[in-house]
Amino acid sequence: MQQLSVIDLYDKDIEDKSTVALEGSVKTIRGSKNISFIELNDGSCFRSAQIILKKDNPNFEEISKLPIASTITVEGEFVKTPDAQQAFEIHGQKVELVGHSNADYPLQKKKQSFEYLRTIAHLRPRTNTFYSVFRIRSLAAFAVHEYLQHNDFVYVNTPIITSSDAEGAGAMFRATTLDMNNLPKDDKGNVDNSKDFFKTVTNLTVSGQLQEEAFTMAFKNVYTFGPTFRAENSHTPRHASEFWMIEPDMAYTRLPGMMDCAEGLLKYVINYLLEHAKDELNFLDKNVEPGLIEKLKGTAGKEFARVTYTDAIKLLQESGEKFDIPVKWGMDLKSEHERYLCEEIYKRPTFLTDYPRDIKAFYMRDNDDGKTVAASDCLVPGIGEIVGGSEREEREDVLDQKIHEFGLKPEEYAWYAELRKYGEIKHSGFGIGFERLVMYVTGMENIRDVIPYPREPGNAPF
Amino acid sequence: MQQLSVIDLYDKDIEDKSTVALEGSVKTIRGSKNISFIELNDGSCFRSAQIILKKDNPNFEEISKLPIASTITVEGEFVKTPDAQQAFEIHGQKVELVGHSNADYPLQKKKQSFEYLRTIAHLRPRTNTFYSVFRIRSLAAFAVHEYLQHNDFVYVNTPIITSSDAEGAGAMFRATTLDMNNLPKDDKGNVDNSKDFFKTVTNLTVSGQLQEEAFTMAFKNVYTFGPTFRAENSHTPRHASEFWMIEPDMAYTRLPGMMDCAEGLLKYVINYLLEHAKDELNFLDKNVEPGLIEKLKGTAGKEFARVTYTDAIKLLQESGEKFDIPVKWGMDLKSEHERYLCEEIYKRPTFLTDYPRDIKAFYMRDNDDGKTVAASDCLVPGIGEIVGGSEREEREDVLDQKIHEFGLKPEEYAWYAELRKYGEIKHSGFGIGFERLVMYVTGMENIRDVIPYPREPGNAPF
Repeated sequence: MQQLSVIDLYDKDIEDKSTVALEGSVKTIRGSKNISFIELNDGSCFRSAQIILKKDNPNFEEISKLPIASTITVEGEFVKTPDAQQAFEIHGQKVELVGHSNADYPLQKKKQSFEYLRTIAHLRPRTNTFYSVFRIRSLAAFAVHEYLQHNDFVYVNTPIITSSDAEGAGAMFRATTLDMNNLPKDDKGNVDNSKDFFKTVTNLTVSGQLQEEAFTMAFKNVYTFGPTFRAENSHTPRHASEFWMIEPDMAYTRLPGMMDCAEGLLKYVINYLLEHAKDELNFLDKNVEPGLIEKLKGTAGKEFARVTYTDAIKLLQESGEKFDIPVKWGMDLKSEHERYLCEEIYKRPTFLTDYPRDIKAFYMRDNDDGKTVAASDCLVPGIGEIVGGSEREEREDVLDQKIHEFGLKPEEYAWYAELRKYGEIKHSGFGIGFERLVMYVTGMENIRDVIPYPREPGNAPF
Repeated sequence: MQQLSVIDLYDKDIEDKSTVALEGSVKTIRGSKNISFIELNDGSCFRSAQIILKKDNPNFEEISKLPIASTITVEGEFVKTPDAQQAFEIHGQKVELVGHSNADYPLQKKKQSFEYLRTIAHLRPRTNTFYSVFRIRSLAAFAVHEYLQHNDFVYVNTPIITSSDAEGAGAMFRATTLDMNNLPKDDKGNVDNSKDFFKTVTNLTVSGQLQEEAFTMAFKNVYTFGPTFRAENSHTPRHASEFWMIEPDMAYTRLPGMMDCAEGLLKYVINYLLEHAKDELNFLDKNVEPGLIEKLKGTAGKEFARVTYTDAIKLLQESGEKFDIPVKWGMDLKSEHERYLCEEIYKRPTFLTDYPRDIKAFYMRDNDDGKTVAASDCLVPGIGEIVGGSEREEREDVLDQKIHEFGLKPEEYAWYAELRKYGEIKHSGFGIGFERLVMYVTGMENIRDVIPYPREPGNAPF
């Protein structure tokens, strides 16, 4: 007899009428006085195995009455059913209870709201929707690693706890071991931060990019993929306090090469999912975003559009479309503009390039026109910005000047400037909010539903 | 002409006498009045390319005097040199300066101490040692993902910020946005934590295991791989305040299956490195740990030993060895005992199983003897414990009782107990400190030298 997982029943060539042993959870039980049909799931794949249990089985009464989510062991006959909807069924012989679930199990058959399911984040992976979402999240993460590693990128674990504030990209959480009810004070009565764990104020990172660039200089192609934090009081469906970022950085590479890499990465992830998450995508296509699979195939199959910010402004102005906020060169484009560009004008993912320098970060490389920087964001239909990237200012003198111009403290960026002092290397990089990507490939509309245990202002349970 | 990376010169079949273009950093320059030999490195691989520049070149004077780490572009003739030590050289034609480095570049040729190099963590990846270490770290991380994904494990990103204290495994950092110089107070004059960002006290995770187990119930095989934190005042070469953990967890699996997985994972990583990091391992074998490659081949080729704690105690007692701390059943084994077991008695990685229940965590599964738990640690020569694992107590009543017995607050573990209430599933898991693994495979002896920007008490620069 073979101890198997449910996935083996689908994937391996099991002999008809052979005896198999399974272990799993009862997903549904239906039937009559004389026969029970048990849908058994063991998590090994989206699909379940159908167990048939007849009245003459000594455990028929006990098993047939089990509440959903009870766990059982099954020995039975594997019977091929080529004419039925399911390719096989298991005729239960020795079927035994392992763990009795409870009648108050919250995931009964009827559909529950995503809002409610967030309150039981420890149980929702057992639903079809979240099973699909979190398996896809896992496969997408691996596809990211595989694409970058196979293109000779070196994975760098930049620090979570940091004494620098990166680019001033957002409000930060402080990491501390000070006893708040008994704070050490200095002469002036202020908190004495030199008594904190790291002898200074430390925060949770908002981006590993600057620290990563030191590794670009050594390894040519590098990436980070880890958690980042924003202590912002945002309550939108697209913002979380804790989320994962992918940040590749490439030496000897300008904007076109950076866009090639970002486009290649997105397409690789999508193709990987189309191949490895068929059941999950089918389920989401039917139940969450109709047309999801077509959308993904379209994205993977088309060349992304590329247009300069300046040309995009003209296209928007000439479109005749009425926007809530009028379009003007120099503005930070709003969601309505970004979506119009990729959804109405280009009808596909669209790179916008060469943004006004005043609305972008200090480390982005100045173009020769004196007005724009070599930055590029990728806008995706239905989501908006999914990639934000740029050439990095590698010229020591220009960088020094921009640090000054942006009002940053040069002493905090001394080590960063040194990366240029000891050999200027042109390089470019981009960031992808991993959860945005997972939302795009699953059709889920709230970032809280693609994070195992989401953190938002006022809420960090489990 | 082909724009190439240095690695292409070694890996691709470049035609003899063809013209190639390169861009990179000057690693060394030596020569005479009439000829210069430039070692050019672009980070694409451990090795460099040798550029030969002759006096008749118009830039000969300028280039030959460049300080180390200056960046240049090279167009030149690719010439095979089958009789020389190096397989090829580049006869420079158009060689131009991109970025002038400085004479005070701290990584001049002479050997620097690891202690000093830690103070320039932004530059040390440019040394041969740290290039090797951090490329191996990246490859090892990918090998971990590949092994687990190819064995159908689902990657779960458990939260970094948490309101639970996991297993009480160690001192924690608090994550807060409260203004320490202006703390909100309650009626009694204590800090009003309900005014903090998450309306409660939150800390940085010490382990994602408990939250992960909710996903084991849904996906069968799962793993975490992310940063964890310890706010402990440890100054040993093996402890850091921030480090990465790998935590696989497997449903329907007992201790032997767990050990098979841990052993399989370690061997997979080692074999992956032996195949993909030849240059780096050779360098470390020569310069950091003589015999490193033989050690790794030995580990990958041998079956790990497995022995119960109780038998190990007997073996130690009967060994005749004088230990600083006498060996007694019930004790937590010290490093001297662990190392004697795997280095002297078994001479290979050794799993110790079935530890006394009183020295292990509450969630480990009680054995029937009433004295031990189904735990297993893997001890590795030269390092000590590298894997810590166990069966998880899946029996609802036993778990409740142990939560009580260990003095934990049942209300904080209510959701964890619910995982059992709704279907008991036997499962097992283990944790690997990723940096311990990197130390083992690189031969580096200080954890600060295998983390890009290490964090330790009193020190979190960059």
